[in-house]
Amino acid sequence: MAGKSTRDEIVAAADRLFYETGFEATSFADIAAAVNISRGNFYYHFKTKDDILDAVIAVRLASTRRMLEAWEEEGDDPAARIRSFIGILITNRAKIMRHGCPVGTLCNELAKLDHGAKDDASRIFTMFRDWLARQFVALGRPAEADALAMHLLAASQGVATLASAFRDADFIRREVEGMAAWVEAQRPPAPAA
Amino acid sequence: MAGKSTRDEIVAAADRLFYETGFEATSFADIAAAVNISRGNFYYHFKTKDDILDAVIAVRLASTRRMLEAWEEEGDDPAARIRSFIGILITNRAKIMRHGCPVGTLCNELAKLDHGAKDDASRIFTMFRDWLARQFVALGRPAEADALAMHLLAASQGVATLASAFRDADFIRREVEGMAAWVEAQRPPAPAA
Repeated sequence: MAGKSTRDEIVAAADRLFYETGFEATSFADIAAAVNISRGNFYYHFKTKDDILDAVIAVRLASTRRMLEAWEEEGDDPAARIRSFIGILITNRAKIMRHGCPVGTLCNELAKLDHGAKDDASRIFTMFRDWLARQFVALGRPAEADALAMHLLAASQGVATLASAFRDADFIRREVEGMAAWVEAQRPPAPAA
Repeated sequence: MAGKSTRDEIVAAADRLFYETGFEATSFADIAAAVNISRGNFYYHFKTKDDILDAVIAVRLASTRRMLEAWEEEGDDPAARIRSFIGILITNRAKIMRHGCPVGTLCNELAKLDHGAKDDASRIFTMFRDWLARQFVALGRPAEADALAMHLLAASQGVATLASAFRDADFIRREVEGMAAWVEAQRPPAPAA
């Protein structure tokens, strides 16, 4: 049990460091220093930085799944659920302005490195994509659901990148309002009486 | 003159490597190997990787300025000029699907590294932003010009990030069509006769 806790600490520290400073810029030694354990204890849990990356991606997939499930439990209106997704940009705006989106920046970095885990990292996007598409189906747009999901995912990624470049919280708020209005506009018209 | 040419070669190789594999993942030695020159000759031109980064950003700013000027010279219709900007996503789609957008991914990486050049890199975005805003002014939307410019810049960044994560050229084409339609919709209505 103590072993599991140390492993979780290592993964949490790596998750934070990969996000805040980047995967390539974070060394094995940086992670060990952040959890303040011996090199021997560290190696007992992870032999390579790639092993830690796999564990970080698994943790992010699990926490994303929990977040999406929680949004579904909050209510039945698919537009409200989609607004919960958009709302991450507001909730996390301070971190986003410093470090960008954790999903997008990791995918970008692993794509450049042509890293073996790049497709695993993209699965976090796929999880958002599939969830958003389900909400657009529920909203009454089955034929365009996947395209609408991809469009909204792209919009949120673009906001994260520019928010980080310009560190502009007003820009985030303006774009989030625009996205919320766009979601409302996606509801199919009510049938004529 | 020969010295200038070697310097240009170093900067061009670094520009490509920073884009294709990332700034942090590219070593001084990688750049020297790519231009096939001795360490002594290399050090004659650049003492640190940060010096090379400054030169790469300067080159990107200059080439961006030339590209924007060329688009202005092609015609007077601001909507057509904005479509030239959107068209980069199609022209460069193969590279974007492999390595993302060179501007956005460098800004993201330097922000994470809290690198001293992060604001210089963001100036490439500012150059696009100011140019796009001028086009929206010319289109007849002076009050919203900067917000429209930021919106379109964000949209293009989001497409680049997802195109890289999913390597989906159809997605790029669909979003580019949507952006072109959006630009047309930004023309103010003709005054009533």
